[in-house]
Amino acid sequence: MKTLRPPKTTRRSVFRDRREKIYDWMSREGIALLAVEDTEGRRDPSLRWLSGLPSDGILFLSVERHSLLAAWDLNLASIHADAEHLLPYSDFKRRPMEALRSAAVMLKIPPGSRLEISPSTPYPLFLDYVGNIGDFDILCRREGAWQEMEQLRALKDEGEITLIRKGAEATNSLLRLLEKQIRSGKIKTEADAALLIEAECRKLGCEGTGFETLAAGPERSFAIHSFPPYTASPFGSRGLSILDFGLRMGGYSTDVTMTIARDCSPAQEKILSLTEKAYDLALSMVKNGESTRNIAAAVDRFFARSKQFMPHALGHGIGLEEHEQPPIRNRDDNQWVLAPGMIFTLEPGLYDPVLGGCRLENDILLGEKGPEVLTEARILRL
Amino acid sequence: MKTLRPPKTTRRSVFRDRREKIYDWMSREGIALLAVEDTEGRRDPSLRWLSGLPSDGILFLSVERHSLLAAWDLNLASIHADAEHLLPYSDFKRRPMEALRSAAVMLKIPPGSRLEISPSTPYPLFLDYVGNIGDFDILCRREGAWQEMEQLRALKDEGEITLIRKGAEATNSLLRLLEKQIRSGKIKTEADAALLIEAECRKLGCEGTGFETLAAGPERSFAIHSFPPYTASPFGSRGLSILDFGLRMGGYSTDVTMTIARDCSPAQEKILSLTEKAYDLALSMVKNGESTRNIAAAVDRFFARSKQFMPHALGHGIGLEEHEQPPIRNRDDNQWVLAPGMIFTLEPGLYDPVLGGCRLENDILLGEKGPEVLTEARILRL
Repeated sequence: MKTLRPPKTTRRSVFRDRREKIYDWMSREGIALLAVEDTEGRRDPSLRWLSGLPSDGILFLSVERHSLLAAWDLNLASIHADAEHLLPYSDFKRRPMEALRSAAVMLKIPPGSRLEISPSTPYPLFLDYVGNIGDFDILCRREGAWQEMEQLRALKDEGEITLIRKGAEATNSLLRLLEKQIRSGKIKTEADAALLIEAECRKLGCEGTGFETLAAGPERSFAIHSFPPYTASPFGSRGLSILDFGLRMGGYSTDVTMTIARDCSPAQEKILSLTEKAYDLALSMVKNGESTRNIAAAVDRFFARSKQFMPHALGHGIGLEEHEQPPIRNRDDNQWVLAPGMIFTLEPGLYDPVLGGCRLENDILLGEKGPEVLTEARILRL
Repeated sequence: MKTLRPPKTTRRSVFRDRREKIYDWMSREGIALLAVEDTEGRRDPSLRWLSGLPSDGILFLSVERHSLLAAWDLNLASIHADAEHLLPYSDFKRRPMEALRSAAVMLKIPPGSRLEISPSTPYPLFLDYVGNIGDFDILCRREGAWQEMEQLRALKDEGEITLIRKGAEATNSLLRLLEKQIRSGKIKTEADAALLIEAECRKLGCEGTGFETLAAGPERSFAIHSFPPYTASPFGSRGLSILDFGLRMGGYSTDVTMTIARDCSPAQEKILSLTEKAYDLALSMVKNGESTRNIAAAVDRFFARSKQFMPHALGHGIGLEEHEQPPIRNRDDNQWVLAPGMIFTLEPGLYDPVLGGCRLENDILLGEKGPEVLTEARILRL
């Protein structure tokens, strides 16, 4: 049996601080071991949040306050990861079951203990765990450790707010450059706009874009999410064009949408103006203690009065994931209430197969003194 | 209760042909209803394979040979999707449970029937299904419909082979352009290489890249998958640089890796030469009926004789997914055997924190007469 060497000093204390919060929670809840896996097909940003490793690994946390990380790529993990013990996944035959079994032994978890795995675990894999690790009580539930991490991750800490602010500055600088190049005619196609973002964001110190940029010219803007995401079609030409992008800085991504409206008809101007008013209405409701469902419902009612319908949610939290908590969504299972430290989008939009689509999206930080709009996207009328 | 209108004529028969195969299988297996969902966090290319819709929808297939598609974005689905009945997801309150319940009624599925959902369904969601749709027997298993679809999807049909051939032609044209610009010094950084691919692939008629391009210059090539995927660092300079990319044509992505080796040391030349020999060895073993595990094991043994270790699988099938069946991997749970119609990568590589990394990856079609190497990536010595 492998034995663990004494832990190395951990370098980045932000990850240790987060793990301490989880250890406290495990202690309260009687969970002996937590397994956080990020792998192809089942990404889990909690791995990065707890260890700094951007992807591809399993982190084990024990209630005795020890951390063990099995990494697909040890070279990469040596640079990025913060954990007491770092081992190559090949030590566990590259199998999650083997890794969990060995980690339980290495971390001295007593038989009969409660082990928690992610609520995204597929049912057949859950059965494997239960069948193969019979000495333990395997928990896989929405309301457990992952809900706790969702709650913690929804309230950004100082380091996270700093990263998103930096990302927002880079985003704003790109929005200005995009406007300039659209006005000057240098950007003529969807690909021109999207590739400018790809090139410039790296010069601005970003890891890259947060998700695939959606650039949809007048022929394609009727779709909420254009497919393909961008093409060689005209962009910023007569009609409505949508540009939806985010920049990732230290793992955290912004998310903005600008609409470019050139030589609009009165019918197009009407949906633009309704979208702007919906945005202002939503922003005016942002305050500590407000239900996010209420905000989204107010916007839905506002659109309904003009016989319009928004076919998506009003917004969502941002952070390590493209979409995270809180949802800003009018659905009866949404119980989220705004609190200081939350960062989220507001993104009303209207879409019509003939007129085209428009959306206005910015990132909002709710501070102790109220909302702060971090990004400067707007509807650009030409 | 909603009633279904008479079906529209379906336009693209390739999707109908695939559904017919699944209907036959459902009939044999006694499955009354199949639900295929693609959504954020749980992508399932089977949706596109069966309906043409690239993403974001639930497709229901009944054993009575009817198809009903609930699409997140009806505008987009009207263009891309092929199904008898197309409805907006908002008709089902945008909830999978509601959609399944309604679809069972609309498609007249008798109570007590067997309904199958994806084996990627998380355990808590599976419990929801069982608790809320009690009239039916809900199956969620690896060895069911999804295994059947994996088997079918691993053997590409003519339309799929044509698309991958087109993608391979575009890939080869880009490989030539990349070599030219690396030799001329026009490509100086990782971002130069990656952004050239983003820009050119759209001119070549591709939907985009198949996955995020990995461009790692000599300082970063030691990692299997560089992080961030590409930066403003030097590329193609003294040492080993890796460029791993794929082009997506009609949904199907190629996957190639070229290594650029400039002014190499004898130790670097040694791992390059071993990688090339491993590639040749693997290719020489490709034939109808060969076990893919055998091929991967032979390469592992070949490297071991030189005291080298490849920290990843030898290859994988390509298609609608970045990685699909068959795996070319030396693991005892790999039972796959090569058959005509399979298209897969061979991608031996070696990585060293000091020397850097190298990988050589091409896409192979196994035809009736033997293997055909579709792409032209190689190790480029400068």
